[in-house]
Amino acid sequence: MSVITIERKVLEKNDQIAGRLRQQFRERGIFTLNFVSSPGAGKTSILERTFQELQGSMRVAVIEGDVQTDLDAQRVARYGVPVIQIVTLGGCHLEASLVQDALKNLDLNGVEILFIENVGNLVCPANYDLGEALKVAILSTTEGDDKPLKYPAMFLNASVLIVNKIDLVPYVKCDLKTLKGNALKINPALKVFEISCFTGAGISEWCDWLRKKGASA
Amino acid sequence: MSVITIERKVLEKNDQIAGRLRQQFRERGIFTLNFVSSPGAGKTSILERTFQELQGSMRVAVIEGDVQTDLDAQRVARYGVPVIQIVTLGGCHLEASLVQDALKNLDLNGVEILFIENVGNLVCPANYDLGEALKVAILSTTEGDDKPLKYPAMFLNASVLIVNKIDLVPYVKCDLKTLKGNALKINPALKVFEISCFTGAGISEWCDWLRKKGASA
Repeated sequence: MSVITIERKVLEKNDQIAGRLRQQFRERGIFTLNFVSSPGAGKTSILERTFQELQGSMRVAVIEGDVQTDLDAQRVARYGVPVIQIVTLGGCHLEASLVQDALKNLDLNGVEILFIENVGNLVCPANYDLGEALKVAILSTTEGDDKPLKYPAMFLNASVLIVNKIDLVPYVKCDLKTLKGNALKINPALKVFEISCFTGAGISEWCDWLRKKGASA
Repeated sequence: MSVITIERKVLEKNDQIAGRLRQQFRERGIFTLNFVSSPGAGKTSILERTFQELQGSMRVAVIEGDVQTDLDAQRVARYGVPVIQIVTLGGCHLEASLVQDALKNLDLNGVEILFIENVGNLVCPANYDLGEALKVAILSTTEGDDKPLKYPAMFLNASVLIVNKIDLVPYVKCDLKTLKGNALKINPALKVFEISCFTGAGISEWCDWLRKKGASA
């Protein structure tokens, strides 16, 4: 039982730090999103597409979370966006304390939207509040339409679902209607976007929504 | 520091049970594989294809691990294969004790190959020995060729890498040579198969290898 007790303590401590971060983000008018998904679902590609679309209209910054390497931070930095990489060295999720530390080295002056890209993992990051305004779950069509039922916590805790790689639907076993139905069965309040970073489909709808949210934060 | 201490104890206890399971599998001549991958990389599809190919030549059984639902066990059961589902209820990986419990309800009489399909997670299952002869890491081309560098532990601890969905290479940003190069950079001893469950490419090579291993276990 001691493991469970300590786990609860870890989560409580995390929630306290996350609460303080959320307060700071609110006071500074920064709309903060926590991007969560399996590895390779397209979190970084969506960020790249989003920066192209928002260029000149919104000021953004990024915290990248990875088990190893700063490959994602390098990709994001090409867009001239302030970015800091957290390497968890084996850790399977970001925690609020890691975000707190990262913020010491990230200039948020004038920033309207902060993207936190979590470690690629559809299980563990669901339980860790990072002080975000909301979690954005990303699911690639290549993963199959049954995933919301099989990994429910992530879809329950997210406010937004981005279905990515819709250009690949003709080539994979994934029915978009079934996928959305399964996601809404877990969480009927989910706001769903369907996009393709490859063709650009759905990117402007997603970015219009972001701009609105970023402006009113 | 207490969390780390307890974590080590959990792993030590897991390793003890896994050691006993490995001994049992060896004594009974059962070749046991631990399938690990991201969600949607194709673990269950590979099992389905494998059962079609091995039908009549090898006796197999399956332990399915999922966070929620028995959808995978249902898929596998259609092939007339003995299968038992472990539902972790939020847990991000299988542990040896869960496998031990599952075996009480799985008839291994005459079984030559036991497949354990882990929870879809490219991080946490890397550290948990289930008593398997070897870990088979599965990576879908849709996840991108950088994943071995970003999630190294899984590729370091695996003996086999199955690159799945090679039929999708023309439609995604994934260079097979780069992917394999990255995987072998992490673990030069990896045995690599390239397959497509959709076209059937590479399935017979994989199953030939399995038959040989199963027969000599």
